Amino acid sequence: MTRFGYLGPEGTFTQMALLSWRPATSAQHVPFGSVDAALTAVREREIDAAVVPIENSVEGGVSATLDALASGAPLSVTGEVLVPITFVIAAREGVELADVRAIGTHSHAWAQVRGWAQQHAPEAGYVATLSTASAAADLAAGGAPFDAAVCAPVAAHNHGLQVLAHDIGDLSSAVTRFVVVSRPEWLPTPTGFDKTTVVLYQRSDRAGGLLELLEQLAARGINMTRLESRPTKESMGSYCFSIDLEGHVADARVGEALMSLHRVCAEVRFVGSYPAANGQAVSVDPLTSDTAFAEASSWLESLRHPGR
Amino acid sequence: MTRFGYLGPEGTFTQMALLSWRPATSAQHVPFGSVDAALTAVREREIDAAVVPIENSVEGGVSATLDALASGAPLSVTGEVLVPITFVIAAREGVELADVRAIGTHSHAWAQVRGWAQQHAPEAGYVATLSTASAAADLAAGGAPFDAAVCAPVAAHNHGLQVLAHDIGDLSSAVTRFVVVSRPEWLPTPTGFDKTTVVLYQRSDRAGGLLELLEQLAARGINMTRLESRPTKESMGSYCFSIDLEGHVADARVGEALMSLHRVCAEVRFVGSYPAANGQAVSVDPLTSDTAFAEASSWLESLRHPGR
Amino acid sequence: MTRFGYLGPEGTFTQMALLSWRPATSAQHVPFGSVDAALTAVREREIDAAVVPIENSVEGGVSATLDALASGAPLSVTGEVLVPITFVIAAREGVELADVRAIGTHSHAWAQVRGWAQQHAPEAGYVATLSTASAAADLAAGGAPFDAAVCAPVAAHNHGLQVLAHDIGDLSSAVTRFVVVSRPEWLPTPTGFDKTTVVLYQRSDRAGGLLELLEQLAARGINMTRLESRPTKESMGSYCFSIDLEGHVADARVGEALMSLHRVCAEVRFVGSYPAANGQAVSVDPLTSDTAFAEASSWLESLRHPGR
Amino acid sequence: MTRFGYLGPEGTFTQMALLSWRPATSAQHVPFGSVDAALTAVREREIDAAVVPIENSVEGGVSATLDALASGAPLSVTGEVLVPITFVIAAREGVELADVRAIGTHSHAWAQVRGWAQQHAPEAGYVATLSTASAAADLAAGGAPFDAAVCAPVAAHNHGLQVLAHDIGDLSSAVTRFVVVSRPEWLPTPTGFDKTTVVLYQRSDRAGGLLELLEQLAARGINMTRLESRPTKESMGSYCFSIDLEGHVADARVGEALMSLHRVCAEVRFVGSYPAANGQAVSVDPLTSDTAFAEASSWLESLRHPGR
Repeated sequence: MTRFGYLGPEGTFTQMALLSWRPATSAQHVPFGSVDAALTAVREREIDAAVVPIENSVEGGVSATLDALASGAPLSVTGEVLVPITFVIAAREGVELADVRAIGTHSHAWAQVRGWAQQHAPEAGYVATLSTASAAADLAAGGAPFDAAVCAPVAAHNHGLQVLAHDIGDLSSAVTRFVVVSRPEWLPTPTGFDKTTVVLYQRSDRAGGLLELLEQLAARGINMTRLESRPTKESMGSYCFSIDLEGHVADARVGEALMSLHRVCAEVRFVGSYPAANGQAVSVDPLTSDTAFAEASSWLESLRHPGR
Repeated sequence: MTRFGYLGPEGTFTQMALLSWRPATSAQHVPFGSVDAALTAVREREIDAAVVPIENSVEGGVSATLDALASGAPLSVTGEVLVPITFVIAAREGVELADVRAIGTHSHAWAQVRGWAQQHAPEAGYVATLSTASAAADLAAGGAPFDAAVCAPVAAHNHGLQVLAHDIGDLSSAVTRFVVVSRPEWLPTPTGFDKTTVVLYQRSDRAGGLLELLEQLAARGINMTRLESRPTKESMGSYCFSIDLEGHVADARVGEALMSLHRVCAEVRFVGSYPAANGQAVSVDPLTSDTAFAEASSWLESLRHPGR
Repeated sequence: MTRFGYLGPEGTFTQMALLSWRPATSAQHVPFGSVDAALTAVREREIDAAVVPIENSVEGGVSATLDALASGAPLSVTGEVLVPITFVIAAREGVELADVRAIGTHSHAWAQVRGWAQQHAPEAGYVATLSTASAAADLAAGGAPFDAAVCAPVAAHNHGLQVLAHDIGDLSSAVTRFVVVSRPEWLPTPTGFDKTTVVLYQRSDRAGGLLELLEQLAARGINMTRLESRPTKESMGSYCFSIDLEGHVADARVGEALMSLHRVCAEVRFVGSYPAANGQAVSVDPLTSDTAFAEASSWLESLRHPGR
Repeated sequence: MTRFGYLGPEGTFTQMALLSWRPATSAQHVPFGSVDAALTAVREREIDAAVVPIENSVEGGVSATLDALASGAPLSVTGEVLVPITFVIAAREGVELADVRAIGTHSHAWAQVRGWAQQHAPEAGYVATLSTASAAADLAAGGAPFDAAVCAPVAAHNHGLQVLAHDIGDLSSAVTRFVVVSRPEWLPTPTGFDKTTVVLYQRSDRAGGLLELLEQLAARGINMTRLESRPTKESMGSYCFSIDLEGHVADARVGEALMSLHRVCAEVRFVGSYPAANGQAVSVDPLTSDTAFAEASSWLESLRHPGR
């Protein structure tokens, strides 16, 4: 039976992502305590795939995921899921909003409800928790150093908490993007609405820098949808770049761009080509279509072998 | 008397940064519970300046700082401080490393000692805390859901904890970079070893993207030392760019580059020009020196007014 | 009285250009035997201006003009004139087309009627002459080593020759562009439909080459309408670039581009800003308008002097 | 027997080029009256190859050659020859320099001795001739409208003229570059010191212009040694670009650059890859070597077929 891991505990937005991922419907769902733990389990073949958050439209990139994908044994992203983020503030029975002295939740969630909290519970302090779900669990268990939790509606419900206010996110359009991570043993088939994720490590002896790398994409008409710099951890000021681009490694223009990056970078780590969650066909300039590349290739052959 | 805020509580690496910032020597030091709180206090004139972390060589950018500088009433970075990060693991008297079931610390610190923990305390869980110093404080106070804290040596000492192991960071060269943030009422004098921080918001109607922005720097021979993308929070996939570049806004080449960015961006938020902590003179191509710009300017004047 | 020189003799297309140049209407017209002679006369103040051909839509650039503008005492282009080129083949009375053994004309004209000649006078040889007008004059004078001349209609008429065929140019749309050249003592006022001509000499110690120069124009949204490489005459493979661009040196974007070229080139020779003959307003991206530059400039001032 | 054509008559610098072209040593040499005639003879299989001038270090590109290579039935450059240009001024017996009233020569030659003529024969007029050799021939034949000829030493000797002054070129380093032109039936083998000649026609619907084309070369580390714009003859302001670049079409980086140009141009006309006359090995960045391209290609294959 297929086993899918996720960043637990039960009741997190990550589980909601997993629940909406069709290929995982009949799989076993295994919660993990951290992104690292889930991805290590994939690497060690304890599970077949893991669903982990990679970025949030308010809080930005999830460092643990970005870093785990950028180093260590290769992993491959084989899909992505977008989950709209809706927060509730919940408490144990009998507690009113006016009574709340301290609010527990994950720091990323807190960042997204800070505006609401300043307005509706200006006196309440903040207590960081491991996850939004664990805030709910701790509160329900008693003894937590906070008297209200910010969490997903499902977590409040699971733990028998009372919702004090619904939909308290400062930005109603907040979305978290999750990726499905497998071992790099297979490659999803191109769909026409694909994304490719790579991590680029620069050569220390090249002056061109990031500009040179982006030019390789622009020269092939490839759109970049995400760029995140991450420290290489070697020294302050040394970064690698985690990039999502439109298209599939099987596309001629993406293949040529990756080859050119491979030449000019110290390392290019391919992290997968997979269908984009929005399902919108990638817009391709006819000059960079597979047909255009194939024509150029046979034209070159004719130049190189004029006698034929 | 001058008042300097910092990300507290006492005993954090941020306080260590403040202590090493010479202009703050005779100032009053005021701890704040969050980056936001400290920067709000600067904006509201409760304090004159605040010292907050902006990036770490292992964990990357500090979102709260990046985001607070990128929006809201203007603030200005007027200095930077680099602090080497050294962690200890500490516990209450009588607790041995072998007894430790759960370790409390800030998630950024945890990321930097994870390797050590997996090796020396593989069974111990992790409990996120507001700061490394609060982990020490909570542990000393009793009742914390963890029995060891990862913190700065000074915090262990302040709270009478026993150090179980010294210098447990996975990367001995870990450094955190702090910035001194003031209201934008004055501009530090150019020193020849300056940095400039800006936040760039792209126009939605321009195809060029980040590439076009970086070309404006490259065309004037300006080196970029940090680039961080941050969500604009409007929708998934919409980012702004927080950038550090070499040179001072008073330098001709930096001035011209900023003007050109101002033209092509939806918004350029200037976040300050200030002396680099490393004190190394910026290397300037003679073709982009102030002299070269001044010569070009008087040459242009002579073309425009041939009769003179 | 104003004196305008032109590439003579009477009856050339250059005189036709001069006749259509309104500022020369009441001036004295002085023919010269070569482009060099005419431009030397401008430099030595014998005449006030000269009209010389600079390029032809079939034959390309006129080297003598390009080279004379690119070196020596500075000259300034103050206007341009487009003249459609119409050729006739003419002979002395009594000569039929079938009798023609050799055709005399200037090599540029010959290039433009070669197709016609191959079809209608395939047996006739070609004799190069100094100009189309001199071909007509020599033929009329008798003793010329050819029995038909290719020239402008007016030249055939002036010399009493009989036209054997009209409008024999291979490309009916052939046009020659002439420039009005003065001493660099005044600059035509911007009109909104201006061109600027410059000659760029590269630094031998820069790797960027022509690409770097063109980027300076592209970065300011400036369109290039002509690029001609010319040998610097120093050694094989050493070239300078004669360039026409849209806009006037008084335009902010053109001024900034010229300053940047001045910095990165060994030499930028400014050859003038003048109204384009087609009278079509230059299309300017709002992001590179004078207003956009002025706004950027006052924004920069506010950054540099935050106290004001 | 192999037949090599050249731009005649006998005694021109072009014949000197042919004489120094080793593969033509035992071939029959056939003079032609014009570049066009020689190249037409190649196209029509009357001769096997033709030697024609393509550029001169003083006068620039030879339009007839550039245009003949840029359109019509395909031709292929298979070699190049550099010939130092030395001019003499010669006259019929008994004529002294002081007696000379008019000097006959080809306009390109005249441009290269103009300085000498202004100094030593300031009163003498100029008469254009078809070639330097024909000036000598006409003078020797009698009845020419000039009394001295500027030509190659060999032409003066052939026609029994008296040399009035030797080595009268204004620039002693003047060199003319000749190309050997064949039908495109075979491709010279790569030597490591090759050049490739192409003609690029831009798409009318692309904004990028020349800049975009040059970027394709720069992105593959390819050096351009000549760029000449030529009118497409369609309308004023419409140009194609004749380009020489370092490397052979068989080189991976050149092949990829040509394919990309093929995609973005309206037409790329390949005019040949051939050994450079200077015999200097092309300097190749290791990142754009054939090895680097091959490694990138097999890396891409491994990404596309992860199961293998």
